[in-house]
Amino acid sequence: MLSFLDASNISQLDQRFRTNFINCLSGFKSLNLIGSVNQLQQTNLAIFNSVFHLGANPPLMGCIFRPDSVERHTLSNIESLGYFTINHVNQVDYPKAHQTSARYPQNVSEFDAIGLIPEFKNNFPAPFVKESKIQIGLKFQQRIDIPINNTSLIIGEILQVYYPQNCLCSDGYLDLEKAGTITGTGLDGYHNTQRIERLSYAKPELPLISLPLNYLE
Amino acid sequence: MLSFLDASNISQLDQRFRTNFINCLSGFKSLNLIGSVNQLQQTNLAIFNSVFHLGANPPLMGCIFRPDSVERHTLSNIESLGYFTINHVNQVDYPKAHQTSARYPQNVSEFDAIGLIPEFKNNFPAPFVKESKIQIGLKFQQRIDIPINNTSLIIGEILQVYYPQNCLCSDGYLDLEKAGTITGTGLDGYHNTQRIERLSYAKPELPLISLPLNYLE
Repeated sequence: MLSFLDASNISQLDQRFRTNFINCLSGFKSLNLIGSVNQLQQTNLAIFNSVFHLGANPPLMGCIFRPDSVERHTLSNIESLGYFTINHVNQVDYPKAHQTSARYPQNVSEFDAIGLIPEFKNNFPAPFVKESKIQIGLKFQQRIDIPINNTSLIIGEILQVYYPQNCLCSDGYLDLEKAGTITGTGLDGYHNTQRIERLSYAKPELPLISLPLNYLE
Repeated sequence: MLSFLDASNISQLDQRFRTNFINCLSGFKSLNLIGSVNQLQQTNLAIFNSVFHLGANPPLMGCIFRPDSVERHTLSNIESLGYFTINHVNQVDYPKAHQTSARYPQNVSEFDAIGLIPEFKNNFPAPFVKESKIQIGLKFQQRIDIPINNTSLIIGEILQVYYPQNCLCSDGYLDLEKAGTITGTGLDGYHNTQRIERLSYAKPELPLISLPLNYLE
């Protein structure tokens, strides 16, 4: 027997309680650090739990930005520079990643304040996080405003990808668990993962089989 | 030393390889079953790894729909009925959840084909998945088309939530791991989780502390 809340119950919840509760309902979340620079070449870093896959061809990722948050520096940097990086949060550096959500003054780089290393390479104009095992460089493509709650969807096209070679499988699957990437719940929950299995492509009337992980190296 | 692919390398990847690879880059994903009905009251069920939190007040969730996929039945049902459900995939039923991605004929309900039970309750017009421990009933609010790759963002407002009482904490945090909810990678990877910790709200110059889980029951 499950407990139950309806819209009226939800609207009457204490605001902080409701924020925690509703933030848990979508399930496990990706955890990524977005790196950017402003027009003075000052670096910026912020943790996001709303980065998602948008499409493979062209290779696109999306991210939701909230109004009036520490994320606004990141948003204005992305729009003015036109480039940004997405870097996976891993099981070693997650407290530093979490700490980027603090409201530092605009003239302070979260890289410096927190002790993560900005890495500029291959002529990419935005900084990667050197400690991240999976680093993605993106070109800003589009901002779609979502009037219903004043959020914005930012879409980027993937231009560069860095990854540990020993995590790549022969069919293109990248083993995030082996790379040390972690997942999140709500606003503040951090979790390691334990693979159950990969399942074969589903067809009607065909039994599913467990896919092996054939690493290229 | 990380391996590296640039945009040209990515565009030259075999299509299936690229789809797997790019689908892994956003990090761990939520896994949810979306339940709906068509105008003939036939039930429909499909797995999604692109459901995300959009906002807590009003309580909103978003989901990306791809063109020309099995998801199109779900999309047309949501738009015609105006209601749908989001149900967490758990560690017991994930193979059934995966199997919903097979292309069943339009006159076959995935609930019947796969052996999950549609649950209608509290006058909600769309079916919940009885086996899911966290069930959410939503009202369709808005469709935002994303022209860059012909996808659509569907936004729903949360009207009903069902959850295990012993998973709810005193500050509103819902312990998804305790509820048996799992997470995904790429198109076909399924993972259990192991909590590392919850971290306190971050402020500049203040050390983070580990938050206890105070269950209400």
